[in-house]
Amino acid sequence: MRLDETGRLEAFSDGVMAVIITIMAFDVKPPSAPSLSSLHEVVPKLLVYVLSFTMVGIYWNNHHHLLRATRRMDSGVMWSNLFLLLWLSLLPAVTAWMGEFPGHALPASCYGVIALGAGFSYSLLTKRIIRANGTDSEVARAIGRDRKGYVSLGLYFAGVFLAFVSPIISYVAYATVAVMWFIPDRRLNLVEQANDGNLS
Amino acid sequence: MRLDETGRLEAFSDGVMAVIITIMAFDVKPPSAPSLSSLHEVVPKLLVYVLSFTMVGIYWNNHHHLLRATRRMDSGVMWSNLFLLLWLSLLPAVTAWMGEFPGHALPASCYGVIALGAGFSYSLLTKRIIRANGTDSEVARAIGRDRKGYVSLGLYFAGVFLAFVSPIISYVAYATVAVMWFIPDRRLNLVEQANDGNLS
Amino acid sequence: MRLDETGRLEAFSDGVMAVIITIMAFDVKPPSAPSLSSLHEVVPKLLVYVLSFTMVGIYWNNHHHLLRATRRMDSGVMWSNLFLLLWLSLLPAVTAWMGEFPGHALPASCYGVIALGAGFSYSLLTKRIIRANGTDSEVARAIGRDRKGYVSLGLYFAGVFLAFVSPIISYVAYATVAVMWFIPDRRLNLVEQANDGNLS
Amino acid sequence: MRLDETGRLEAFSDGVMAVIITIMAFDVKPPSAPSLSSLHEVVPKLLVYVLSFTMVGIYWNNHHHLLRATRRMDSGVMWSNLFLLLWLSLLPAVTAWMGEFPGHALPASCYGVIALGAGFSYSLLTKRIIRANGTDSEVARAIGRDRKGYVSLGLYFAGVFLAFVSPIISYVAYATVAVMWFIPDRRLNLVEQANDGNLS
Repeated sequence: MRLDETGRLEAFSDGVMAVIITIMAFDVKPPSAPSLSSLHEVVPKLLVYVLSFTMVGIYWNNHHHLLRATRRMDSGVMWSNLFLLLWLSLLPAVTAWMGEFPGHALPASCYGVIALGAGFSYSLLTKRIIRANGTDSEVARAIGRDRKGYVSLGLYFAGVFLAFVSPIISYVAYATVAVMWFIPDRRLNLVEQANDGNLS
Repeated sequence: MRLDETGRLEAFSDGVMAVIITIMAFDVKPPSAPSLSSLHEVVPKLLVYVLSFTMVGIYWNNHHHLLRATRRMDSGVMWSNLFLLLWLSLLPAVTAWMGEFPGHALPASCYGVIALGAGFSYSLLTKRIIRANGTDSEVARAIGRDRKGYVSLGLYFAGVFLAFVSPIISYVAYATVAVMWFIPDRRLNLVEQANDGNLS
Repeated sequence: MRLDETGRLEAFSDGVMAVIITIMAFDVKPPSAPSLSSLHEVVPKLLVYVLSFTMVGIYWNNHHHLLRATRRMDSGVMWSNLFLLLWLSLLPAVTAWMGEFPGHALPASCYGVIALGAGFSYSLLTKRIIRANGTDSEVARAIGRDRKGYVSLGLYFAGVFLAFVSPIISYVAYATVAVMWFIPDRRLNLVEQANDGNLS
Repeated sequence: MRLDETGRLEAFSDGVMAVIITIMAFDVKPPSAPSLSSLHEVVPKLLVYVLSFTMVGIYWNNHHHLLRATRRMDSGVMWSNLFLLLWLSLLPAVTAWMGEFPGHALPASCYGVIALGAGFSYSLLTKRIIRANGTDSEVARAIGRDRKGYVSLGLYFAGVFLAFVSPIISYVAYATVAVMWFIPDRRLNLVEQANDGNLS
């Protein structure tokens, strides 16, 4: 018994995402003194961490639903998945940067760039999976028009530029994406339920 | 062959908990000199590490037993599990803080806040699993009244406030929880044994 | 149900590679100030990170294809796999070194030494797998002459010494390997397709 | 399909050991300058890292063989496994300490204490597994008298005390254990081969 191709891709992606989450949390360094004012300094870092944690959580959830509906893989799927992991792996550094300099335009803008890169590569992964499974496969029919995905990319794109007007706008844009995705994608859930009899 | 939904949730949670443990141990920095006095300085950090290690070990054990009795999942289960991981991921930072400032009230109190958050989200996870599996499912019947869980929450709650009387009280409260949970939950073990014929 | 021997070796290797990737990304420290000039300083580190990420991605891909075609294992396979992981685990340190001192000969040369060590131990792993599975096994026939592997070793070898002429030559050599391997190994893919009916 | 109890214990242990290896390698900080003398300073750390890597590799190998022969688990097995992971998780800190202060007695002695703790808890794990599986189980018969294990404990024990005569003696003792275990345990291999027909 061994994990099949999809299984190992899921396991590897899970591993990377699990470490990303923990490394980010580790980067929320403990306060430098046992005082309320030191604790107060950590608050922005903590909020940015929760934002990034939610983003990784969303990707984990969606990735999980997407891969469960996937039957066939090829090297295009593998590399676009690695491309997604590359962008996600840069999240801890940009999270630490934005958390250390709240209210500054450049870190807020760069955060959006990384988020945009991750979002774009997730779309690419989706396209590669459809190509590998055929446009009449269940995963292709299930994904359909990815309205939520496009809105997210638009919000990240806005965040990248509007950070230079005010970083607050970017923060609101990024938080909006997080809240919006919090409700998971119903479309793939349906496929999954239909498959449950065959798979589990 | 691939892991099913519960399997992947377990694997991801295991990954996060494995990294948390190792990151915490890594944070017990080596002594700054090769002398007994330097080694002595590390002792409080080491003790706090062992406490936090035990806490993660307890969650791993209970999580494992809980998920093994679980048959159905939904997005509520997934997000409450991520919520639990969010709290646990903050454990390394607060462990480092308490280990660096032993005898101070604020770190000892915050340690309790994180522990309370993890305990609360574990209860939430339990409730979501019961909702997803039905109140007449085996996991629901198995969990029953979670007396141990409520006592733990009470002790953590006490630790949060009594730290300002004396941090020692909090340390004792947290250590009591650890010792108390050391004996694993018999109730779920029974379900597991009953399932062993079907599962393994 | 449990993972078989090959499954656990894959899972462990995946775990190590997942952590390596994330640790390397974490080592691309956030810029020290929220300014363009600080961001600019991070660029060489980022480029070296992408190079190393690609290298680990290549190993993950090839390792995955190799192990999928493997039927039998022994302790020689296990230890040569650990030997490969030992070299890969040194990648974060040498990546950070080369990223911090771009344009210097010694870090560029040492990067090649680590890459050469990883490449050599991968060849060793391949040989041990053939020995364990027999020269007439499908994995042995599939691997055949490993032309790409030998070219890679040659380029790394050149990079180690030509770094002292100019580090740029080494950078070009290492990047060439990355691009060259980007197109995955067709030979093992064929075996895999032939096995798909039996395995998945 | 999900991993069974033994499977999840293996997966979790693998996760912890994978992170330990990578964290230790990460702790071999890159040289502080792009010069030969800086590179030279890293050499002791590198050697100690290779020693500790080998130790974790040995535990991974033996743990893997042991768990594969195990049929039944209980909470005693789980906790003694966590106890083993606790000791192993302290390896990165003591490795960094010994690597930073080569030739000093105390770090060399403490390295032996951690190794002794890990060795002792591995023996404990073995005993708990025999108790859970019965003295007439195949795993019990397979383990038999653990001569190699006792010699290892003796060498670590010697290393702890003789470090104060000369740290060199400890280094030799620890390296001897590594070389001795490098040849895997034939006894469990036999059980495994006998099981191969049933398991894989």
